[in-house]
Amino acid sequence: MSAQDHASHPILLRADSQGITTLTLNRPQQFNALSEAMLDALQAQLDQLAADDSVRCVVLAANGKAFCAGHDLREMRATPQIGYYQDLFRRCSRVMQAIQALPVPVIARVHGIATAAGCQLVGSCDLAVASHAARFAVSGINVGLFCATPSVALTRNVPIKRAFEMLVTGKFIDAQTASDWGLVNQAVEEEELDATVAALAAQIAAKSPVSIRYGKAMVYRQQQMALPDAYDYAADVMARNIMEEDAMEGIDAFLEKRMPRWGPPA
Amino acid sequence: MSAQDHASHPILLRADSQGITTLTLNRPQQFNALSEAMLDALQAQLDQLAADDSVRCVVLAANGKAFCAGHDLREMRATPQIGYYQDLFRRCSRVMQAIQALPVPVIARVHGIATAAGCQLVGSCDLAVASHAARFAVSGINVGLFCATPSVALTRNVPIKRAFEMLVTGKFIDAQTASDWGLVNQAVEEEELDATVAALAAQIAAKSPVSIRYGKAMVYRQQQMALPDAYDYAADVMARNIMEEDAMEGIDAFLEKRMPRWGPPA
Amino acid sequence: MSAQDHASHPILLRADSQGITTLTLNRPQQFNALSEAMLDALQAQLDQLAADDSVRCVVLAANGKAFCAGHDLREMRATPQIGYYQDLFRRCSRVMQAIQALPVPVIARVHGIATAAGCQLVGSCDLAVASHAARFAVSGINVGLFCATPSVALTRNVPIKRAFEMLVTGKFIDAQTASDWGLVNQAVEEEELDATVAALAAQIAAKSPVSIRYGKAMVYRQQQMALPDAYDYAADVMARNIMEEDAMEGIDAFLEKRMPRWGPPA
Repeated sequence: MSAQDHASHPILLRADSQGITTLTLNRPQQFNALSEAMLDALQAQLDQLAADDSVRCVVLAANGKAFCAGHDLREMRATPQIGYYQDLFRRCSRVMQAIQALPVPVIARVHGIATAAGCQLVGSCDLAVASHAARFAVSGINVGLFCATPSVALTRNVPIKRAFEMLVTGKFIDAQTASDWGLVNQAVEEEELDATVAALAAQIAAKSPVSIRYGKAMVYRQQQMALPDAYDYAADVMARNIMEEDAMEGIDAFLEKRMPRWGPPA
Repeated sequence: MSAQDHASHPILLRADSQGITTLTLNRPQQFNALSEAMLDALQAQLDQLAADDSVRCVVLAANGKAFCAGHDLREMRATPQIGYYQDLFRRCSRVMQAIQALPVPVIARVHGIATAAGCQLVGSCDLAVASHAARFAVSGINVGLFCATPSVALTRNVPIKRAFEMLVTGKFIDAQTASDWGLVNQAVEEEELDATVAALAAQIAAKSPVSIRYGKAMVYRQQQMALPDAYDYAADVMARNIMEEDAMEGIDAFLEKRMPRWGPPA
Repeated sequence: MSAQDHASHPILLRADSQGITTLTLNRPQQFNALSEAMLDALQAQLDQLAADDSVRCVVLAANGKAFCAGHDLREMRATPQIGYYQDLFRRCSRVMQAIQALPVPVIARVHGIATAAGCQLVGSCDLAVASHAARFAVSGINVGLFCATPSVALTRNVPIKRAFEMLVTGKFIDAQTASDWGLVNQAVEEEELDATVAALAAQIAAKSPVSIRYGKAMVYRQQQMALPDAYDYAADVMARNIMEEDAMEGIDAFLEKRMPRWGPPA
């Protein structure tokens, strides 16, 4: 697809409404495969969002039957060179980490299959809501390509024996199982998916922006520290958070039994 | 409350019976908020218990409608200084770590709401039993203060997407959900709470004291090590444990099909 | 038992069929206790299997009523010397790590009780299927010997409060609970155990051998890394995997909608 085509048929859509940005994968015929162009488009949007103080929550959605089928196998097969693949998988890993590094929460809205790097995308989001039509697999092993980078996200979401089973069998799990195992927060009826995601996003957008931003960066960082270091770090973040006007206002509002009024992010 | 009032109305009660020490938060009107005085009282008791060889198990309970509502917002609001907050959150973190550092198991007996640092208190105990009247939240975000230090305990108990959702929404989960997610060991009917906690504590108190002490310190320490280091360390602890008279007696009793007789902690 | 007896009544059986090797603990009268001889036999087999390119999957099973009752208490009691115990627990830890270090997946087939180091054996396998007759405990605490080395495997499989409870109470959990907590992948009816294990092993044996081998080593290694390091490492493994003939063949077969033909492991 040429750049011109991209302009008229963009592969990644963006909509902004009341502090909530929705990014929608828009290659439905290719099951929203993460082609180079799609990875670039995602990275570009994530970079923009990272610098945008008006954003309070991001929803990652997809058009068509599938949520995301992972890498674009045809495109990938066309350049059988180790340097190309190293670069490709690093770029993909950079996108996944950019989701976690984003200062605001990202919710995956999963309406269909999410396989390989598509499953990793769900694991890389902070939150995920799946409809009962969604199914999840890290199925690279079926084509002789173990889902190595997807395993990084998967093993940080689900217990190790579950992750291992998915990785070596390539088997699908349904939305309820994904919820039971911790890969998604909730499995809902198809007709409730939009309302559930919208309600969750609105709930987050209604919180103090500066406090959400303090929190998201801290949660993942402290998780990788030894307990005493994690506590020193979290205590310092919390002390800085409470010195913000929003926290003082929030506590005052609570003590005065009224609704708080939040300021913009710091 | 003055020191004199504390003497007649202590904010932390202690009862000892058959090797089981019960600490009871006793600021029911303030939902057992972790005021500076409460943190100091907890730290002092934990320091004493750490040096007390007669203690075999600790139960952490609370009086009144709530288990613990976290920090004392009114007190906290009164001194809006970064140095004060850094000190406060560090002191609170020290209490939480002192629970884990205690040589004997600590069981949280959760009969009502446990929010923010109160939820962290549950997460910091080795074991927790909740009644169906209990509810859990890390709700600081609702007042513009992200539950940073509580997230340290929470993310070490429940899967990351569950923890993240609780932290950014401030939502309550019920006792059964807390049990399903691993924040508590068991959810029981209100009328069974005391019996369940008592049975669990008695079960632990009936084990070899020296062996329990070897074990508790080891479990958390090995968890943060790479696998080979964890095994080297655990193998060494186990070799030292088996050289204790209790282990020899325990194995002899097992082989002779009789009850073992434990000695005091080393 | 003399070496001659071992020859006629081997304590560890091995059967090979279509790339699947089944190792069967065969000390049924001693509940398959991990005596020194059993540990040596397991280590020797694991060393052989590690160097055997024809193996695609290993099943660890056991004869008799129990799966494995852990260390051989009688043998262990006979040499009450710290050096002996340090060596014994290190050898046992080496066997457990050799299971994880094996280049192919290992499935525990658990038909009866798995206690102490027997429970650790299940935790150390990549996958586990249990029949409803199986029960699990880390029960060393009952004889005054805290299950230190078993806790290394247990805490890497189940949530921390579950693990702690099992370790300080020595309580049994049933197969369904073990499955709910992540210690085993599945709990099935007794009469379905063999078919379930066989189907899982066959499924794995049908995958590209070289890709499975890339994957298994990577999964555990990346798990212990910080996120950026894990991604750098996994991206590199994946680039090397896709350069293998199997991956090219697998992707071609997928694009051409035909079955892939795998080569031997690299």
